[in-house]
Parts: sequence; structure tokens; C-alpha cells
Amino acid sequence: MATISFARGVPAPECLPVEQLADCARTALERDGRTVLSYGPSPGYAPLREWLAERHGVDVGRVFVTNGSLQGFVFLAQRLAAGKRVLVEKPTYDRPLKILRELGADIVGLHCDEEGLDPDALQHALREGEQPAFLYLIPTFQNPSGRTLSEERRARIVELAREHDLLVLEDDPYGLVRFEGEPLPSLLELSGGETAYSSSFSKTIAPGLRVGWFVLPEALAREIELTATSTYITPVLLGQATVHEFVTRGHFEPNLERVRDLIGQRRDAMLAALDRELPNVRTTRPDGGYFLWVELAGVDAADLLGRAEEAGVTFVKGTDFGGEPDTLRLAYSFVSVDEIADGVGRLAAALPAAV
Amino acid sequence: MATISFARGVPAPECLPVEQLADCARTALERDGRTVLSYGPSPGYAPLREWLAERHGVDVGRVFVTNGSLQGFVFLAQRLAAGKRVLVEKPTYDRPLKILRELGADIVGLHCDEEGLDPDALQHALREGEQPAFLYLIPTFQNPSGRTLSEERRARIVELAREHDLLVLEDDPYGLVRFEGEPLPSLLELSGGETAYSSSFSKTIAPGLRVGWFVLPEALAREIELTATSTYITPVLLGQATVHEFVTRGHFEPNLERVRDLIGQRRDAMLAALDRELPNVRTTRPDGGYFLWVELAGVDAADLLGRAEEAGVTFVKGTDFGGEPDTLRLAYSFVSVDEIADGVGRLAAALPAAV
Repeated sequence: MATISFARGVPAPECLPVEQLADCARTALERDGRTVLSYGPSPGYAPLREWLAERHGVDVGRVFVTNGSLQGFVFLAQRLAAGKRVLVEKPTYDRPLKILRELGADIVGLHCDEEGLDPDALQHALREGEQPAFLYLIPTFQNPSGRTLSEERRARIVELAREHDLLVLEDDPYGLVRFEGEPLPSLLELSGGETAYSSSFSKTIAPGLRVGWFVLPEALAREIELTATSTYITPVLLGQATVHEFVTRGHFEPNLERVRDLIGQRRDAMLAALDRELPNVRTTRPDGGYFLWVELAGVDAADLLGRAEEAGVTFVKGTDFGGEPDTLRLAYSFVSVDEIADGVGRLAAALPAAV
Repeated sequence: MATISFARGVPAPECLPVEQLADCARTALERDGRTVLSYGPSPGYAPLREWLAERHGVDVGRVFVTNGSLQGFVFLAQRLAAGKRVLVEKPTYDRPLKILRELGADIVGLHCDEEGLDPDALQHALREGEQPAFLYLIPTFQNPSGRTLSEERRARIVELAREHDLLVLEDDPYGLVRFEGEPLPSLLELSGGETAYSSSFSKTIAPGLRVGWFVLPEALAREIELTATSTYITPVLLGQATVHEFVTRGHFEPNLERVRDLIGQRRDAMLAALDRELPNVRTTRPDGGYFLWVELAGVDAADLLGRAEEAGVTFVKGTDFGGEPDTLRLAYSFVSVDEIADGVGRLAAALPAAV
């Protein structure tokens, strides 16, 4: 019996627009090969930076494109967070937590509820202790919880950041993968372009291209440029030029529709299976993104993981994200609709009868 | 008057096999798109790793492919060199020097002469002071000097490394760009696979693909894998798959012949111009690579750089590489044969009459 993985935050293979990207890569090289194939500027391929700057309504000098957005987070953290206080959501994406820990940052996890980060918790943290290097948050379809920060709270967090001169880094890889409901304004928009923002084409085109981007305050962008030059001279321009060809051909929006539909079917299947198999378990019900969050009301997720893996299903326990021991993350993005039904069945079988 | 740059260690645009790579990128995606476009293993695209392992006669677990070889050097330096003693050639490539300085390494520059690194200097450094984290050297067509380490010295350095349990990192991006003479065995070969090795396709296919690789001791490869995963999850697989398609189609050797010819013409033009315009200036006469080294017999290269730029030609002064104040590096790889003649003329005009 093959294990069904609810652990991997990866798009299903059919999300990847393979044929279109193959043609875009060829055209990008034929059109602009001598630029794409040589050393270039460390903030990335100029035409893609311009496209992103226009989309965000910011100066192109603020746009920084990296080999995946995590690489850019590493640059920022190395420059700003070593040994410093850093605010994050509790729970939050495990990779930044690991990077911050290795840099010796003092990580403060802020309370979150169904509406996302609690602004009162932020305010409290800003009033005590040293000035934080930054606040890192994923306001939309958060990893790991699937929660979305309400518009009222977004406005209040922007206000608090302004009052306390706090750098806010809004990570938004999932925002466009919305199955239903109306998009909310980003913190970048609400702040009139003052906050920092990162996103990626990993969830909207393909992760293997490794094209992430940042919108940074101008001075910080210049600093990160130096770090990037000292690390890899030039990011991989072929992936970036391929993305640029893809978006200028008008493939982006239709592809997004297709991806929303494919991932949305999986979200539906997972919620239906949970309602059927585990009606008493509390979960988030995300309107988009890859993940949902399960609260086990006292059952230890580490214990459950062992039993679940014996039963042929796997997930990531909440403590990996700084969450409570009785929480876990389920990713529905990669598995098929049939596997989701089977996997939730196995999970239910692995749970104590009382749940 | 446009400035002629002898500063940039970049291949001339006509070296880049644009059409072939455009077709290879498309085919790589059509053939293996779902692998190339998703998250993958942090040591790189498996078929390319296997090709490299076979070429070097090592186990595939020792081969680590990164977004350009500098990125791999950063991983190694972060893991091994922070605050430690590191041995390098004097002069050496400026980017590793900068990376090591930022990590607080104690950098020891070892004496070099026409035959490259002086083994007596290495022996002396190994007998005094703390055990170095590693020795970094570029034995073939060195950057910046263009010098090549003799075979006898290679053998002696391998022997010393073995005696003193010293990790040797042999950086070899230029070795295949040989215009004349017989290739020498690498330190990796001479040591029976014991030393570490890095190289890149930047000088043999195209730098913009950012495909560099390392052959590392197995345990170190596993450690670097973790660092890479924490930094970028997966390197950019599209560039690596494109290179793999290029080499398996048999394009690599013919392209290398073409590149050797194009860069060799430039080396010839630069040596001829130097003989004609600056017959009394001492320079290296490399059999390959991108660079030659000029000794100005007391003239300060920083002063000369100012006058040279006014005269419309530029270079990198030797002190940037840890060299003496009266040395400089000339790169002949990027400029045209005509520009080389003009640029050396301008350089001669900028030099004091006595030289």
C-alpha cells in the first residue's frame, strides 16, 4: 500500500503547464538569448522586473527577483535578523522558522485565531522588549493554517507598523489561488506601498522554475542586491525569462483559472471527507491555498503521526510550525481526489475512537 | 568613446550557443517537464548528476549541482569557514575572498610563482597555526593570474593534504578552455578522488544558466544538501535539464572546440598587442582561460586605473585579488580582437613613459 501524503505543499502534476512552458522557454532564448545566457543584474531579468513593478504599482528599483522566494527570505534574514527579535504568526511556515533559528534570532510567535494574526498580540509585543527586526506574516491562505487575515485587521496591522516604525514582510504565495470569495487588499496596497511584500510563481505557474520576487523599500533592495551578487552573481535568468514570455503571451490568467479549479476540487474533496469521516474534529475551511489546519482537542499529533504512517497516510504535525502539540497540517494540493478520500479514511482509522 | 573593458570575466556573446540551447530547453521540458517543473532534490537534476558522476568516476552521492558554483562555495564556507583559518593562493579570485572575509575567516594567502602555488609555502602554513578549514585553489588558468599549477606541484600538494588531513577545494571553471598544450591531471584525479572539486558550465556553455557543480566527500555532500534545502529547497532544474539535454545530444565537445577557438583568438590578440605596445611589461602567457596578469614593476595599479579609465580602458587592480599594488588583471574573454588592440594601445598611453 503506497502512503498517501498530505504532507507536501506541492502542486498536483496536472497543474504544471508543461507544453506552454516548453514553448515559452524556447522563444525566450530565441528572442533574448544573449542576455538570458550571460551574467546579468543580481535583482533579476529586467523585463520581468518591469512587469512585476507595473502589476504592483511600484518603482522597478524596489522589485527583486530571486531563485525562489525562500532564497530572498534568507538574504533578508541574514541582513536583518541575526541575533534580533523577529515577530511571526503562531503557527507559521516552518522553513523561515528554521532559517531564523539558525541565525540566532529571538522568535516571538504571535497569537492567531480564525481571522488570522491578532492585532492586540502584535500591539502587546511592540510595547515590550526590543524593536523587532521585522514582522513576517502570510495574511492570505496562510501556511500552515489556511487562515486569511480579515480586512479590518490588515488595516490595523498596517497602522501599528506605521506607529512603531516596524518593517512588515507580507509573504503572499497563495493569494491568487483563490477558489471562492472576493480578494482582500494586500498589506502592501493598504499601506500605500510602505510594507515589504514577497510572492512566487511556484503556486501559479511552476515551482521548479524557482522564480520568487520581493517588493522592498528602496534602500533595503540595494542592500539585498549586494548580498545576492556576493552569493550567486546573477539569479537563473532562463526561468525568469520563461515566466516573462508566459505572462506576456497572456497565459497567466487562464492558467490561474485552471489551477484554481484543479486545487479547488481537492479542497472540496478534503472538506467532504473530513465532514464524513471526522465530523467532530475542528478544522479550518480555507477559501484558497494548499492547506488546512486540524485541531485534535488533546490528541498528540506526534503519536497520531506514527499510527497514521502505519495506516498509510502522512501529514506534518503542528509543532513543526510552532503550533500546539494537538494540531496538524493537511495539504490537499498534490494528491488526487480519490487519494484524498482514502487518506482521510486512513487518518480516521488511526485516531482514537473518542475523537 | 566607449570604454573598452578588460575587467569582465565574461564570455564573448558569440560563444553562447543560443539556438542549440533554445531547442534543448524545449526538449528538456517536453521530455521530463513534470520533474523539471516541480520541487526536486536539493543536490540537483538527477540525470545531470549522473552524467557528472560518470565523467569524474565518482559515486553520484558526491555530486552536488548548484545555481552557479559561487553559491556552492557560499554553502561550504558558511558550513566550514566561519571564524576559521582558510588557505588561498595569493592572488586569488576576489569573490571567495569577500565571502570568507564576511564570515570572519582568517585568510592566509600563500605565495605563488610562475608554476602556481608554492608547495613550500603550503607546508610552512600547515606546520604553524591552527588546522585550516580548507585550502581553496584554482590550479588551472587561475583567476586572476592565468597561471597553471605544474604536475609535480599538484602531486606534492595532494601529498601534503593527505599528511595533514587538509581538505582541498580545487576550483576548475577554466580547465577545459585550453587553447594549447596537454591537459594536466586534476588534484581530484591525482588524489584518487580524495579532494573536493568544483566547476561550472559558465565558461563552457553559458553563464546565465547558472549551473555549477561540486564533487565532495560523501559526508560533506550530505551536510551541504541540508543547507541547500534550507536556502532554496530545490535549485533551478530548468537550467540543469537544459545542460543535460545539451551534453547528451553531443553538443558539448563541438561547442568547447568553438569556444576555445573564439577565446584563443582573443588571447593571441592580447599577447600580440602587449608585445607590440608594452614590450617591457612582465605578463603571464596563459595556455587557456580568460585572464592574464601584469606586473608593473613599481607602478601603482590604482593610480594607473584612474588614468586608464580617462583614456577609455578599464581593468581590475591586483589588490582586489589580494595581490601587490603594482599588479593588475586583464580579461580578454569578452572583448573583440579589434577592441583588444585598441584597449592595449590606450593602456600603454596611460602608463608612465618609463615603463
